[in-house]
Amino acid sequence: MGGDHAPEIVVKGVASARVRYPKAKFLLFGDEARIAPLVAAESNLADCVTIKHAPDVITGDAKPSQALRQGRNSSMWKAIEAVKLGEASGVVSAGNTGALMAMAKIMMRTLPGIDRPAICSLFPTRVGETAMLDLGANAVCDARNLVEFAIMGECFARALLGLERPSIGLLNIGSEDLKGTDTLRQAAQMLRDSPLELEFHGFIEGDDIAMGTVDVCVTDGFTGNVALKTAEGTAKLFTEFLKSAIKSSWLAKFGMIFAKPALSRMIARTDPRKYNGALFVGLNGVVVKSHGGTDAVGFANAVGVAVDMISRDLNTKIGEELERINSAAAPQPAVQAASDS
Amino acid sequence: MGGDHAPEIVVKGVASARVRYPKAKFLLFGDEARIAPLVAAESNLADCVTIKHAPDVITGDAKPSQALRQGRNSSMWKAIEAVKLGEASGVVSAGNTGALMAMAKIMMRTLPGIDRPAICSLFPTRVGETAMLDLGANAVCDARNLVEFAIMGECFARALLGLERPSIGLLNIGSEDLKGTDTLRQAAQMLRDSPLELEFHGFIEGDDIAMGTVDVCVTDGFTGNVALKTAEGTAKLFTEFLKSAIKSSWLAKFGMIFAKPALSRMIARTDPRKYNGALFVGLNGVVVKSHGGTDAVGFANAVGVAVDMISRDLNTKIGEELERINSAAAPQPAVQAASDS
Repeated sequence: MGGDHAPEIVVKGVASARVRYPKAKFLLFGDEARIAPLVAAESNLADCVTIKHAPDVITGDAKPSQALRQGRNSSMWKAIEAVKLGEASGVVSAGNTGALMAMAKIMMRTLPGIDRPAICSLFPTRVGETAMLDLGANAVCDARNLVEFAIMGECFARALLGLERPSIGLLNIGSEDLKGTDTLRQAAQMLRDSPLELEFHGFIEGDDIAMGTVDVCVTDGFTGNVALKTAEGTAKLFTEFLKSAIKSSWLAKFGMIFAKPALSRMIARTDPRKYNGALFVGLNGVVVKSHGGTDAVGFANAVGVAVDMISRDLNTKIGEELERINSAAAPQPAVQAASDS
Repeated sequence: MGGDHAPEIVVKGVASARVRYPKAKFLLFGDEARIAPLVAAESNLADCVTIKHAPDVITGDAKPSQALRQGRNSSMWKAIEAVKLGEASGVVSAGNTGALMAMAKIMMRTLPGIDRPAICSLFPTRVGETAMLDLGANAVCDARNLVEFAIMGECFARALLGLERPSIGLLNIGSEDLKGTDTLRQAAQMLRDSPLELEFHGFIEGDDIAMGTVDVCVTDGFTGNVALKTAEGTAKLFTEFLKSAIKSSWLAKFGMIFAKPALSRMIARTDPRKYNGALFVGLNGVVVKSHGGTDAVGFANAVGVAVDMISRDLNTKIGEELERINSAAAPQPAVQAASDS
């Protein structure tokens, strides 16, 4: 297991997830000597955890190619392999993102009809939550990739947000049809023409993400990653400014005695731990990436994303959508046109 | 004059700017019949404002090409023309961004050595302010464009932030040298090899903008526009959550009586009006774009950006930097190597 505070927060996170999902079973991959006492300390893990010893670790700065060459005995490799072998239904890791994606692609392969997997996660918005992808797996994307992301994001939003017809927006620098790049205009046309009857809203802009204008925000991995981190940075800045404003005056500190519960509820609404757990969508298996720096609460939420995706059978649903597209695109039997006269 | 609340807020903004810059003179372009009474109502504008009648208006949804064809009698065209003719030192507009850029490019041309102008503005950060460009003028950029943006942004930060050696970062999806696109890696190499001895920090990520990791954040117009609007949307979301948290409980409302002055100071720190006024950098003239929806305070700040750029002679400084680059790139006279022996 990886991440900044592994294996401690991983074991604590699993213990917390177990409370929420009492039927779940866990395989924990890593240094058995370190993990065993941590598991023993959590009373509710005795009957649901199996420790699988994996001596090697993929470091945070390892390049994906290096991880693929040298990481066959790592906890990351072994955990993904367990899914491939059918021993587990999904994998959750707080380790190196690039290595996790590279290993998952090699071992699980992409779903039939999907060119590239994407990283998908939920954002808090004014009206609820929005699913956004790609958050960094593919720096450069073509129109076909974006359309695949839209289909996968729609399935994700239906499964995780319980929406019947999630609306889809393409992230652009203006909402008019002529704005942006050729790739975006082409993807928009393909989505409009899609036989899937997607609820395609059209182009959206950066501020539409937080406003919750659409349920699924589709973009390339470069833009998505910058937008995600810019939003995180802005939220952090705002929280810091708020804290320092309160600390700056005795009057404010006094007032906070009364206002604190309400403000804590507000901060909880945008707590990044609540949104921890990004799905690698488009693979033949469930892979969830946790933030490396999260705590047990955050890790438990990432486990929750995996459990939800598995129990709602997301990949089968994506497969069905793709099949509908492909069969619609295939040549149709000729139909004799009925004459009106 | 354009924008959502023109000409009222423009005239009020000019009156407010006049207090800050008592030597400034203003030419106001637009419908004279509407502007004259507004100017007459502001006692400090009598001796510094000349109204120039321009009957036509460029609407917010006009395409740049359409504005160029049909806008020769618009206030926007006439205002830019006044700069070209030497009647004014710079132009400030709250109107249609695309039309303003297109007209400015046609009439003013780019600075020698600059391929494309960019939109540049300041962002609030944890440690002060960061200049960021391009914020939307060029959706697709090559490495050479990014290097030009870096040089222009550096001059902007020196002029507006008073820094001697502003640090420059290239916005990417990871700080490692191998991350991102070929264009970014190529631009990074060109900046490292630059004869200008720029303070090049390397790659930065989205959260580095608000953290103030660098003084100048360089990116293409697509990514910059998405990042800007995502940050604005997140800040707005946070402010709304804060307000609704306070309204949600009587206890919080009571506490706020004491905490309000401190919180108002915090909100003032990130007040978008304070950061209103984006410079179109790289043109033979000063063009500042105000937010269309701003108020008089915001418009006065946009006027302030124009005055600062004019009084600090930004364009001459950019020209000098470019000349230094070009002379360094030119073949040097051969020098006889002195032998050590």
